[in-house]
Amino acid sequence: MRACYIGVDLGGTKIATGAGDQTGAILVRDVRPTEAHKGTEATINNIKASIRQVLEQLGPDLQVCGIGVGSPGPLSVSEGVVYSAPNLGWDHVPIRQILKDEFGVRVEVGNDANVAGLAEWRFGAGEQCRNMIYVTVSTGIGGGIIVDGKLLLGSHDFAGEIGHMIMVENGPLCGCGRRGCFETLASGTAIARRAQEAVRLGVPTAMLELVDGDIDRIDSAVVARADAAGDALASEILDEAIRYLSIGLGNLVTIFNPDRIVIGGGVSNIGDRLFRPLRRMILSRAMRESVSRVEIHRAKLGSDVGVVGAMCLVMD
Amino acid sequence: MRACYIGVDLGGTKIATGAGDQTGAILVRDVRPTEAHKGTEATINNIKASIRQVLEQLGPDLQVCGIGVGSPGPLSVSEGVVYSAPNLGWDHVPIRQILKDEFGVRVEVGNDANVAGLAEWRFGAGEQCRNMIYVTVSTGIGGGIIVDGKLLLGSHDFAGEIGHMIMVENGPLCGCGRRGCFETLASGTAIARRAQEAVRLGVPTAMLELVDGDIDRIDSAVVARADAAGDALASEILDEAIRYLSIGLGNLVTIFNPDRIVIGGGVSNIGDRLFRPLRRMILSRAMRESVSRVEIHRAKLGSDVGVVGAMCLVMD
Repeated sequence: MRACYIGVDLGGTKIATGAGDQTGAILVRDVRPTEAHKGTEATINNIKASIRQVLEQLGPDLQVCGIGVGSPGPLSVSEGVVYSAPNLGWDHVPIRQILKDEFGVRVEVGNDANVAGLAEWRFGAGEQCRNMIYVTVSTGIGGGIIVDGKLLLGSHDFAGEIGHMIMVENGPLCGCGRRGCFETLASGTAIARRAQEAVRLGVPTAMLELVDGDIDRIDSAVVARADAAGDALASEILDEAIRYLSIGLGNLVTIFNPDRIVIGGGVSNIGDRLFRPLRRMILSRAMRESVSRVEIHRAKLGSDVGVVGAMCLVMD
Repeated sequence: MRACYIGVDLGGTKIATGAGDQTGAILVRDVRPTEAHKGTEATINNIKASIRQVLEQLGPDLQVCGIGVGSPGPLSVSEGVVYSAPNLGWDHVPIRQILKDEFGVRVEVGNDANVAGLAEWRFGAGEQCRNMIYVTVSTGIGGGIIVDGKLLLGSHDFAGEIGHMIMVENGPLCGCGRRGCFETLASGTAIARRAQEAVRLGVPTAMLELVDGDIDRIDSAVVARADAAGDALASEILDEAIRYLSIGLGNLVTIFNPDRIVIGGGVSNIGDRLFRPLRRMILSRAMRESVSRVEIHRAKLGSDVGVVGAMCLVMD
């Protein structure tokens, strides 16, 4: 019998489930809609059905050692309860107990950005270095921080919410209700918002053409494409986001003195145009002794990161 | 025989050495000038003499288990070397080996703010809670961060330099060469600088009288006294520093989800006038789930914190 681990990546629109072995390779998958609008019960049934579908596809030589669930937070790892997940409409759902009762195996729950950090650390760009900051830059900014080879959870499992560090007092309004959070300045959403605002003010740009005049369709990928084509506004907006990234990540370097920063999420797909200036700019943003020794890597696991990270939760 | 531990608090102007037992009580002390201007050799000889003086006063029932040294950094805990300490004029001094050769016992070295955090965690206001942020607010701002009951050192022992988080891009110039660091906005020096600047601009204030017209003598204690007497300028400056403290410490709460924040250093002597608004303001500056569960305490160990913290380095 070979040990195998189930990972559930629970998102606002889809549930991705996979079964994998201890190399982090995914052997079997299932993806289906979350259907959050149908209520908590329906979403839980979809999770169960997705896990069942994966189990049915497993070969007879595989023994399921546990189920890990990566979920939007805040949640309690120790209690296995998702306290609140606005995207799912969840309120205090004891998902660990529910799945334990259903499948009779060990179940663990983790914050989605945290488990992604765990996956990159164990099987991806982190290469199991001692201290690592994982940051996912997409709609928001999330973090997974590894301290001495262990995920930083804090006293109530809320640690690592780096997207909500306040970086500009009275800055742009954040979904959390406060202002000037890191993710209002450097996320994909922030890049898109700034571009749309500028276009609406009539700043000349090639972006308008790229979206056939539909300003709402300008996102960070459009900004990156326009920048690559030499559009001045797009370049300025990208540079600004990278500048804030260098300050936010620089502060984390000053605080944690990590070996490595690993950047994932949609915005990391911009690639060298993001990483090259970021590596240069961060040098003047963090304590010299620490920042001169840190490596900045692009995440490796791509869209599998959530499933693999959830698997990691039950791997030891 | 009773175990006893030597702690050396190495500062730019004085060396304080103590011997204590495992309750953290200091039994014997010595204080003498650092004499940094006389060179590294002279300072090292002063440290040795101070330790010898303490050893001579020890009763015959006490067995010295080790010597801990708290030093300005950056330094390497694992190598026992102080890389650079501008206040001491030190450059790559292997202080651990030097003291080991001299006294033949275990020697450990730690960053001064780090060991102060260790002392408050073990014997002071931290009460050995699981996760704690110690912050000393005086000339600069230093930190000692306890994660799961262990001092956060990072990969090269430079972690916890919270005074150099950049909080205002292009803010006031910092001693580290960058701009807008936490300590340029919320330290005792920052409070004094802002008060002196305003007075020089002619803003009416009672502070001028408190220092007999000598503007250079306005420090954070003078600002606090003027504030207590109802001086509007002093109140505004104090409020501003507290606002920045709430943002900086709020960010650390969002990142670490600690049980407790412990604040020491000269500025903490302002007392309730600092702690009351800080506790209120931080609630809107950090992630709700984390900040609603954090306690903010004033440090307990006073001026002994450096010696006790150095002792802690050799206590296990």
